[in-house]
This record gives sequence, C-alpha cells and structure tokens, in this order.
Amino acid sequence: VIGVVGGVGPFAGLDLLSKILDQTLAGRDQDHLPVLSISRPGPIPDRTEFLLGRATVNPGYPILEQAALLGRMGATVVGVPCNTAHAPVIFSIIETGLARIEQPPRLLHMIRETVDHLRRHYASVGSVGVLSTTGTYRTRLYPEALEPLGFRVVVPEATMQEAIIHPAVYDPVYGLKACGRATPRARDNLLRGLEHLRAAGAEAVILGCTEMPLALPGREEEGLALVDPALILARALIREVAPERLRPWEAR
Amino acid sequence: VIGVVGGVGPFAGLDLLSKILDQTLAGRDQDHLPVLSISRPGPIPDRTEFLLGRATVNPGYPILEQAALLGRMGATVVGVPCNTAHAPVIFSIIETGLARIEQPPRLLHMIRETVDHLRRHYASVGSVGVLSTTGTYRTRLYPEALEPLGFRVVVPEATMQEAIIHPAVYDPVYGLKACGRATPRARDNLLRGLEHLRAAGAEAVILGCTEMPLALPGREEEGLALVDPALILARALIREVAPERLRPWEAR
Repeated sequence: VIGVVGGVGPFAGLDLLSKILDQTLAGRDQDHLPVLSISRPGPIPDRTEFLLGRATVNPGYPILEQAALLGRMGATVVGVPCNTAHAPVIFSIIETGLARIEQPPRLLHMIRETVDHLRRHYASVGSVGVLSTTGTYRTRLYPEALEPLGFRVVVPEATMQEAIIHPAVYDPVYGLKACGRATPRARDNLLRGLEHLRAAGAEAVILGCTEMPLALPGREEEGLALVDPALILARALIREVAPERLRPWEAR
Repeated sequence: VIGVVGGVGPFAGLDLLSKILDQTLAGRDQDHLPVLSISRPGPIPDRTEFLLGRATVNPGYPILEQAALLGRMGATVVGVPCNTAHAPVIFSIIETGLARIEQPPRLLHMIRETVDHLRRHYASVGSVGVLSTTGTYRTRLYPEALEPLGFRVVVPEATMQEAIIHPAVYDPVYGLKACGRATPRARDNLLRGLEHLRAAGAEAVILGCTEMPLALPGREEEGLALVDPALILARALIREVAPERLRPWEAR
C-alpha cells in the first residue's frame, strides 16, 4: 500500500497522486494500486521559512506524525512530495522518528531517487541545472547529491533566485501555491530560469520544487530536458509495491 | 477533517480531490483543509456489474470498510465520489454499517446534495437530463430523487444507453476508466448523449457518473448547462468542515 504525505503543498500532493495513476498499467478501476493520502497542511510550517530561521517548529515533526498515521492505516511505503522537506535537518526527523515505531512504512527519499534516475537515464549529461525554492537552494540539496557523482550542477544566481524563481512558487498573487495552477507570470518566471540555466551550460534541468511541474508539465522545454522528481517519486512508489504494474519509462 | 473514499474510480477520486482544492478559499498551503483519501479499488467490485447481477459481493461492504477506516484516522465527514454506489442496495450497507460504529464520520449523499443544488440553483428548469452508467440508469437514481420535486427527468433511450453512453465510461479501449482521461471517442459519445437529451427537451444535464467530467469539464456545452455531482459533493464536504472557506458559487 502506497502512502502519500500530501499537503506540502496540496496541489503538489494531488499532482503526485495523478502521476501514480498515470504511471500504473491498468485497464479498469480494480487494477489500480492502493493509495492512502493525507493532505493536512495546516500544522506543517513552510519548509523554506523554517530553513531560513523564520519558523520555529521543524516541519519534520508534523510530517513524521502524518507518515506514521499512514503506516498505522496500512501504508507500507511512504513518499513526501516536497523537495525542501528533504533538507537533512527536516528529513532526518522523519527518518529517525519512523525508525522508532513498530513495523514502520518504508520512507522513500525523493532526492536520492532523482539522483539514481539521472545516473541511469542522463549519464551522458555533464551539467544539470536546478530550479527550486530558496530553502532547497540554500541547503544545496541537489548539488551535494549530484556533484560527488561527477555531475556539474548549475543553479540560478542569487538575485534571480530571490526575485524570479522563489516567487514563481510563493508569490501571493501569481505564485503556484496561491493559485494552484500555472499562471502566465509564474510560467514566464520559470522559463526565464530555464534560459538562465541553459546559458550557464545546463543540458537538463531538475524541477526541484514539486509545484513547478504545474507550470512546466512537459518532459522538455525548447529542447531542454526537464527532470521531474515528483514523477520519479511516483514511479518509485509503484516499483516498491507492484513493479509489474509500472509503465515502461518513456523519456519524452 | 474531510474523508474521501476514492478508487470508485481512481480518476474520479482524484477529480474530487482536485475540486475540493479548487473550491477552497486559500492563499497558501496552510489554508487548505485537512483531507484524508483512500484509493483502494482492488476489493471494490464494479457497481454496475453488481446491480446487473454479474458480481456477487456487494460493493457497499468494502466501501464501508474504507469509510470506517477514514473515520478511525480522524475524518469527520465522508464522501463517496461514485453515483452508482448511491444505489440504495449498495449505499444502505454503508449507511447502516457506519451507524453501528462509535463516533462515525458523517456520510454525505451525493445524489441528495445534487438534488438540493438543483432545487436552489436551477429552480426555473423544468426538464433535467441525466447521463450515467447503466447501473445508475437501471436503478433510476436521479428520476426517483427528482420527479417528486416536480422536475421532469430525461434519460437516453435504452439502445443509446447501452451502445454509446455506458461504453464512454467502460470501454476497455477508449473508455474513461481505462484511459483515465478524455479520449476523442468517449467525449464524442457523451456529446451525442447531450444532443439526444437536448432534443428530448432537457434544459440542463446531470453528469451522473463521476468519470464524465473528465471528458466534459466545463459548466456548459453549447449553451446546455452541465451539472457535476462531484463538484457539488466537493462543495458539500467543504461546507461541513469549514463553510467560511467555501468559494462563492459561480454557475459558469
């Protein structure tokens, strides 16, 4: 049984559920896999705010509570569709907390799954770009995971990160979290980010915030490959419970 | 806390979750309501197959089990986004079963919510059409609920129902359940159904199967109002837990 800690954010959770269905080989209702989902964003502080020292409660605790509840309901494997929640200071709380309960669900690590995916499917790529929230950016989640494997990692310059990329997700008027769908301005900001990373040498770009695929749903943008960690997590969750139901990988 | 028995079918469950988010007034992650969802279609027999005598297990039992689990996890109100599951022989199992557990979640009735909605927002409409699965069609769920209120109810002729409408949902090649999205043929079948009902006098049409809005996502089609019970259920679920967060109703 697949468990999803949704709500971080709610539309990203929905997007993960949608990707689980899309990546499952099924011809009728009954062929689809059992999926339990909790979307309870209220008690989970914003991950970037916490990492920047502007929230005191570590979001790992409420996420742990929800992951444990999924386990008690029967989930055997759990995914958390939020890149920023994988910052070690947050994710370690979830990991160590789950390890202490009896028969814990297996917790997947979206960043590690993405890195594995890049190693398998993008081995010829030298430079990988990353678009993300400022929390993921500051904690260097992707550079620290990818550089030891020989990938060169390209991220936006600080001013672009603060003024263009983070607001694409967080702006209260046009941001993906507030609107729950792609707005022209959010998409335009992200396209500027892609061009910025392409100019800096990126051959593929990780959409390192689970809201970004709402605005960039394709597998590429003007020839630049887009890597979607939520899609990779969806596939990893299926692989854990029913690998025979996993749709064959299609790069585009 | 909202509970959703998804999986009947899985894409309809996802669509309901999406409508709950869309109908909630929220500017950031934390404003969204707590939603628990179970999509475990495996043990739930097809509702129409059961109503036609081709499945022996009443789908009400596994649905009851999942609704009760949602209650134990903390759901205070539960919705089942499947019209056919509201056939009395199925739904009564869920209702009476939940009534026997301690502190049961409140179970909403999608058909009754839809009828209330029609009474409030479509009072000037005399004739209402219904497109549905053959299970909902044969059990006359909507005619029996609407006719006592003075609505005239129009349904497709039997041959169109069997050859065009039911297959739009169930066909293994082009049907909405098998494909999880609108296919041109499923949409075309439903458009033929709409024209058939319009010709028979319908002024508004209930999309009486929760997969149908995947192919007909708008509020109207060539001037014919479309009534979506899943949207109405989403709003009813929000109303039960946080009426102040319910987006004002927009007819189109």
